[in-house]
Amino acid sequence: MSNELHQQQSAEEKHKARQQKIKANVDKRVAKATKECGVLVVITGNGKGKSTSGFGTVLRALGHGLKPGIVQFIKGSKWECGEMNILKQFPIEHHVMGTGFTWETQDKATDIAAAKVAWQKSKAMLANPDIDIVLLDEMTYMVKYGYINLDEIIEALTNRPPMQHVLITGRACHRRLIELADTVSEVQPTKHAFQDGIKAQKGLDW
Amino acid sequence: MSNELHQQQSAEEKHKARQQKIKANVDKRVAKATKECGVLVVITGNGKGKSTSGFGTVLRALGHGLKPGIVQFIKGSKWECGEMNILKQFPIEHHVMGTGFTWETQDKATDIAAAKVAWQKSKAMLANPDIDIVLLDEMTYMVKYGYINLDEIIEALTNRPPMQHVLITGRACHRRLIELADTVSEVQPTKHAFQDGIKAQKGLDW
Repeated sequence: MSNELHQQQSAEEKHKARQQKIKANVDKRVAKATKECGVLVVITGNGKGKSTSGFGTVLRALGHGLKPGIVQFIKGSKWECGEMNILKQFPIEHHVMGTGFTWETQDKATDIAAAKVAWQKSKAMLANPDIDIVLLDEMTYMVKYGYINLDEIIEALTNRPPMQHVLITGRACHRRLIELADTVSEVQPTKHAFQDGIKAQKGLDW
Repeated sequence: MSNELHQQQSAEEKHKARQQKIKANVDKRVAKATKECGVLVVITGNGKGKSTSGFGTVLRALGHGLKPGIVQFIKGSKWECGEMNILKQFPIEHHVMGTGFTWETQDKATDIAAAKVAWQKSKAMLANPDIDIVLLDEMTYMVKYGYINLDEIIEALTNRPPMQHVLITGRACHRRLIELADTVSEVQPTKHAFQDGIKAQKGLDW
């Protein structure tokens, strides 16, 4: 056998051995993870990709025949929502808190009333075993502003149907929700096009 | 006026003033961001929510009538993909690198060949001005393993149609892709249900 061919084969064998070891470790960890239950996922942090991740998960669930429910706590009537243009073609329970961004309305009483209605819709979904996955998009801000009661949220999440998944998105998620969650991702903004003077664009940013 | 009522009104006014200040700052920043162009977004890090964010953005774009292209670099034939079960009902160019997870195939030559085919499909999308947004799902691993040439990727991204958006997802994104990108999010895993013995579940994790 030529030296070069020998070296090639040896590298190939090393790669195979390394991959087998990785596979064995992954298999071992997968074998240990056997519990099936509703998972509470929190996607927080200041980076781009939180709401899209929530809607992407709804899309994934829908593709497997699961029934989603969605409550949008911030998006108002100003911008139409690309995601919902598609998702509304499917059987999904959906509620939008219609006051627009809270820093645009500048009317605390109106915001609180709208938040409370949106929370009642959420609570009904969290009590409905026919809904397999609930997206509470940008709910974190309502907690931060004190517009909805945190104890009530914790109670509704804790007593929800055992197989129901819940996704909560938004910046500055409250510590108690993070503690309660099974999976928490913190999306950090390494950089953002906005900083380079690039405006929010239809189809990418809304 | 009673003291209590006076305090209430004053709090309301303070809230309004604070919100107006926030709105003025946001408006000023929005006014400065006027450039419209194709944006390169990288969603990396070890946390949950990268691919769902990519697919969620495709959903958003689709909802505004944009034409997406998708190349999936890791998902193999083992698990059907919930997202694609829905998205395949729409006019989307789509290619899946069919060898499954690379630590399962353990055959480097097969993986490299499949990666090269997937990259050719990607390159064609990155040269096609009819495609408004390209999702290169989990492409980072192909760069990390050296299965596709980084210089060639940089060249294709740099010379793509000026209004085309591109999303690259996956762990351990190469420094040069991060440098080239306009928006980069690092998704960090604060915690994951898997660590509590909860298995990957249909509709949530795949």
